[in-house]
Amino acid sequence: MEEFNILSLLIILAGAWLGGTSAKRLGYPPILGELVIGIILGPALLGLLETSEMISVLAEVGIILLMVYIGIEINFRDLGKASWPGLLAAIGGFIVPFGMGYYTIIFFGGTDLAALFVAIAVGVTSLATKSRILVDLKLLNTRIAYVLMAGALISDTLALVIFAGMLSFVDVGSIDTLGLVWVAGKAILFFAFTALSGYFLLPLLGRLLSENNIKNRTFHFTLILIIVFGFCELAELAGLHSILGAFMAGLFIRDGVFNRQISKEINDIFHDISIGFLAPIFFVSAGFHVTLEVFQTNLLMLITVVLVAMVGKIVGTALFYLPSGYGWREGVTVGTGMNGRGAVEIIIAGIGLEMGIISTEIFSILVFMAIFTTLSVPVFLTWTTNWLRKRGELIHQESRKGILILGANPLGLYLAGHIKDQEEITFVDSNRELVEEARQRGFESVHGNILKEETMETARAFEKGSFIALTGNNEINLLAAQLAHDAFFIPKNIVLFAPQDEGAGVEVLDRIKASSMFASKTELGPWIFKIKSGDYSEDTEEVKQVTTTRNWVKKHKSGKGKILPVLIIDPEGHKRPFHYHDEIQPEEKVLFLH
Amino acid sequence: MEEFNILSLLIILAGAWLGGTSAKRLGYPPILGELVIGIILGPALLGLLETSEMISVLAEVGIILLMVYIGIEINFRDLGKASWPGLLAAIGGFIVPFGMGYYTIIFFGGTDLAALFVAIAVGVTSLATKSRILVDLKLLNTRIAYVLMAGALISDTLALVIFAGMLSFVDVGSIDTLGLVWVAGKAILFFAFTALSGYFLLPLLGRLLSENNIKNRTFHFTLILIIVFGFCELAELAGLHSILGAFMAGLFIRDGVFNRQISKEINDIFHDISIGFLAPIFFVSAGFHVTLEVFQTNLLMLITVVLVAMVGKIVGTALFYLPSGYGWREGVTVGTGMNGRGAVEIIIAGIGLEMGIISTEIFSILVFMAIFTTLSVPVFLTWTTNWLRKRGELIHQESRKGILILGANPLGLYLAGHIKDQEEITFVDSNRELVEEARQRGFESVHGNILKEETMETARAFEKGSFIALTGNNEINLLAAQLAHDAFFIPKNIVLFAPQDEGAGVEVLDRIKASSMFASKTELGPWIFKIKSGDYSEDTEEVKQVTTTRNWVKKHKSGKGKILPVLIIDPEGHKRPFHYHDEIQPEEKVLFLH
Repeated sequence: MEEFNILSLLIILAGAWLGGTSAKRLGYPPILGELVIGIILGPALLGLLETSEMISVLAEVGIILLMVYIGIEINFRDLGKASWPGLLAAIGGFIVPFGMGYYTIIFFGGTDLAALFVAIAVGVTSLATKSRILVDLKLLNTRIAYVLMAGALISDTLALVIFAGMLSFVDVGSIDTLGLVWVAGKAILFFAFTALSGYFLLPLLGRLLSENNIKNRTFHFTLILIIVFGFCELAELAGLHSILGAFMAGLFIRDGVFNRQISKEINDIFHDISIGFLAPIFFVSAGFHVTLEVFQTNLLMLITVVLVAMVGKIVGTALFYLPSGYGWREGVTVGTGMNGRGAVEIIIAGIGLEMGIISTEIFSILVFMAIFTTLSVPVFLTWTTNWLRKRGELIHQESRKGILILGANPLGLYLAGHIKDQEEITFVDSNRELVEEARQRGFESVHGNILKEETMETARAFEKGSFIALTGNNEINLLAAQLAHDAFFIPKNIVLFAPQDEGAGVEVLDRIKASSMFASKTELGPWIFKIKSGDYSEDTEEVKQVTTTRNWVKKHKSGKGKILPVLIIDPEGHKRPFHYHDEIQPEEKVLFLH
Repeated sequence: MEEFNILSLLIILAGAWLGGTSAKRLGYPPILGELVIGIILGPALLGLLETSEMISVLAEVGIILLMVYIGIEINFRDLGKASWPGLLAAIGGFIVPFGMGYYTIIFFGGTDLAALFVAIAVGVTSLATKSRILVDLKLLNTRIAYVLMAGALISDTLALVIFAGMLSFVDVGSIDTLGLVWVAGKAILFFAFTALSGYFLLPLLGRLLSENNIKNRTFHFTLILIIVFGFCELAELAGLHSILGAFMAGLFIRDGVFNRQISKEINDIFHDISIGFLAPIFFVSAGFHVTLEVFQTNLLMLITVVLVAMVGKIVGTALFYLPSGYGWREGVTVGTGMNGRGAVEIIIAGIGLEMGIISTEIFSILVFMAIFTTLSVPVFLTWTTNWLRKRGELIHQESRKGILILGANPLGLYLAGHIKDQEEITFVDSNRELVEEARQRGFESVHGNILKEETMETARAFEKGSFIALTGNNEINLLAAQLAHDAFFIPKNIVLFAPQDEGAGVEVLDRIKASSMFASKTELGPWIFKIKSGDYSEDTEEVKQVTTTRNWVKKHKSGKGKILPVLIIDPEGHKRPFHYHDEIQPEEKVLFLH
C-alpha cells in the first residue's frame, strides 16, 4: 500500500470541490471546474500532482458508479415519451458532428480508430447544467426545455451504443467474416442478456425481496453493487468496456424494481459516492493527462475540432429538427443548448487514451473541446432564447403534464374548473361521493387513500407536473406532498395549510421544496361553504410591478379571511395556482374570491 | 489501470455478501463470514484470489470510511453517561488481556513491538453482534446490556488511544529525550488540534452552512470527506496512522453539528459505503494474508493466544467489575459478552502486518483469535445469562431512560399514573391547559408543537427510551414517531392509531419500526370521555401461555370497543404499555379497562 497517498487524495478532493463549487456559482456544471483544477494542479501547469495507481483505481470505480447513476437517471418511461422533435434533435446533433469530426481527424492524418473516438466525443451531448441553466434563463416550462431534456437522454444512450459497436471492432483488425460475426454476436448477446435479465430477472428479485419482507437498505445496496459489477464483467467478456455494463445495470435499477423508498435512498447513495466523492477524482485526474503544448504544436487542429464540434452540433441539430415543423430558429436554439460536452465525452476520451488509440495531444484537444463547448452554452443559449423571445416564438410546454389534486371538494373543483382547458386534471379523494361528483363534472377522478402508492399510481402520479393538496388536514397534505415529491418525483408540490397550533409547520415544506397554496395559512371550511352556497364573487386585480405572492397577500392583509387569491393569469390568459414560491409579473392578474 | 480487475472485485463482493449474510443468519456479525470467505478464496485454501494494488487501495479507503462510521456511532453524550460499571468492565477487560497477551508473545520469543500489537489486539472488545445478540437472548432491557454497550464504546476509544501512543514510538528506537518529547508532543498536538477543531470549528462551519441555507446533501458529504482526509493527513503528519484521523473526524461529525436530517442521511451513506461496499473488501482481503500452516507450526502459540484472549477478557472484566457491587457473576456474564473481537482488532493487526511488525504467522493467529472469540460469544453468553436468570440475578435496566408521551389527555395521564414509579415520564402537548394539568399531577410537561425539533429537544427526547404518541390525529402521531425515530434515535416508538379511511395506514409503521398502541386501531374519544367521567373499571387477566398481544386482542374480540388493554404487568410488578410488537409471557398479567 505504499502508493496510498492521503495527501494527494485530499488535494484532489478539495480541489475538485473548490473547482466544482466555483463552476456551479458561475452557472456551469461542476465537471468544468474539476477539469480545470486537474489541468492546473497536474503536470500541465503546477505539477503538484500526477496520476498514481491509487488515483486510477478510485477514478475507475468512480466512473463505474457514475455510469450506474447516469443509467438510473435515464427513465425508460421518459425515453418512450421522448417525442419526435427530441429524437430528431438528438440524432441530427449526433450524426452531423460525428461525420465532421471523423473526417477532420482523417484530414489531420489520424488513424481510423482515433478518428472514430474523436467522432463520438464530438457527437456526444451533455446538457451543460441540466435544469439549472433552464431555470436561469426561465426556460423550464418551454418546449425547448422539453426537447433538450429528451434529446440529451437519447444522446447518451445513442453515443454509448455506437461506442459499444466501435469497441467490438477495435481489436478486430483484419480477421475473417466468421470472426466478425463472433465479435458482433458477443456484443449483441451482451445487450440482449443484460436487457432481458434487467426486464425479467431484476423485478423477480425485487419481488422476492419484498415478499420476504427484506427492507434493509444496505443489503439492497450491496446486492445492487454485485449486479453492477456482474454486468461490468459481462461487458468485458463480450469485448466491450465495463462502463457499458454499469450503464445497463443502472438503466434497469429504477422503476419499481425494488421497494420505492429503498430505491430512492440507493439512488441518493450512488449519486453521492459518484458525484460527491469518486467521479471528481476521475475528472480531476483527466486534467493530469492534458498537455498545454497543443496550443503551440496543434493549434490548428484544436481550433478545427472545437469549431467542428460547435458548428456540427448546432447546424446538425437545426437541420434534422426541420421536419418537426417548429422552425429552424428553434432548431438553432436547441442546438446551442445541446452544444455542451460532459462526463460521457471525457470518459470515452479517457478510454481512448488508456487503450492507446488516441494520443495525449488528441486527448488534450478533446478535454479543451469539452471545456470550450460547455463554456459556450450559457452565452449562446442566452442569445438564441432572447432572439426567440423577442420574436414571440418561445413556446411554452411542460415536460410533465397535468395536475394531480388531492381533495375533490368544492374549492378543488372550482380551481380545476378554471384550469381544465389548459391542463389535464386528475382528482384523488377518499370520499366516494366527492369522487363521483368530480367525475360527473368531467374530471378524471380516483377514489382511494392518497398515502398509498397504489392510489398514486392509479392516478398516474408519475406523469404529473404538479401536485396540489387541498384537504383540511395539514398532515395529510404534507405527507401526500412528501410522497409525491420523494417517490413520484412530481416537481411542483403545492400544499394547503390551515392555521393550527399543533402539527407540522410551514417550514417542513422547505425540505421537499413544496410551496403553500394561497401563500398564507388558510382555513378550508369557510371557503368551501361559501363556494358551495354560491356566496362569493370573483374579481381580478392587475399587478403593476413585479411582486411576490407573499407581498401581494401582505398588501391585502386587511381582507384576510375575506379574500382568497386563487389564480394568477398571465397576459396570454394562462392561469396558474396562487402559491407562496411565485412572483407576479407586470400585466399579470390575480384572480381572487371575496 | 492494468491492475483493475472487475472479476476479482465481483468475486470479493459476492463472497463477502454471501459470507456476511450467512454469518448474520447464524447470529454472528458479518465480519466473521467475510474473514472466513477471505481465507477460503485466498491463497490459504482455494487460491482463487490474492491481494492486488486495486484491492489494497479500495480496502484502505474502506477502513478509513469504516473508522469514520465507528467514530460517528460513538456518541459523546453516551460516553459521558457511560456509567461507572461500564468503565470498570472496559478497563479491566482491556488491561488484563493486554498484559497477558504481551507476556505471551515475549514468552514465545517475539519482539517488544510485536508483543504490543498482539496485546492491543487481544485487549480490544467488539460487541459480537451489537444489539442483535442482546435481542436474541432477550437482554435488551437488562443492566448487562447497558454495561456491555457502554463498555464496548469505551473500549474502542481506549484501544485506539493506546494504539496511537504505541505508534508514536514505533520508529523511535533509541533516540534522545528531546526526540521522545517531540514524538509524544506531535501525537498530543494531533489529538488536541483535532479535538479542539471538532469542538469549535465544526459547529461553526455547520452554523455557517445553515445560516447560508445550504441544505445540499452532496455538498455536505464532500465537505465532510475533505475534513476526514484532512484529519487523516494530520494523523500521518503526527506520526500516527490515518485511521486515527478518520476516527477523530467521525467522533465530531454527529451531534447537531450539521442540520439533523442531513447528518442522518450522511451517516447512512458512510454506513453503506463502508459496511456495504468497501470495508468488506478489507476484511475479505485480510483473509488472503492468513496462512493455515499456523495450525501445524504454531499450534501451541495459537491455542495460548486464544485462551489468553478469552480467559484474560472474562477474568479481567469480572475482576475489575467487583467494585461496582453487582457481583462477580454479572461480571463474568459481561466478560463473556465482551469477548468478541471485530473490525478494530483486524484493522490494527492488518496495520501491524503492513508495517512489518508482526509476521504472517502472528497475523494469522490474530485472525483466528478474532474468529474463535467471536464464535464463543453467543454460546458463552447464553450459558451465563441463563445462569443469572435462573438465580434471579438478571437485573432490568434501560440504557435510555424515560418515556416521552405526546398527548397529556386523560388516557395519557392514566397510563402515566401507572408507570410513573418505574420510569420518568415527560409529556408534550400543544394544549396549555392539558400541559398545566399534567404538571399539577407532578409530571414533567412541555408545551409546544411536537413536530418542531426544539420542542423535542426541550423534552430531552435524546435521552428517552420510548416515545408514545397518543393524540387523536393519526398523521401527527405518525410524523412525531418518525421524527423521534429518525432524528432523536428513540428506539421504541408506540403510536395510537384511530380507525380511519383516509390517511396513513399501519403499514407505514414498519418503516420506522414503530408499534401500534393497544395492538389494534382504537378510537381515542370514547375512552377519554370514560376516563374523564370515571365511567370505567380496571381489571387484570393473567396469561397462561406465551401469546402475542395481537392474539390477546383477537381472543377478546367480542369486547372490541368495550375493553382496552393498557398495560402488561410482569411477575415482578414491572409494567409496560400494551402494544402490537410484544409478547405476553406466562404469569404476566394484562391490565385492561372496560
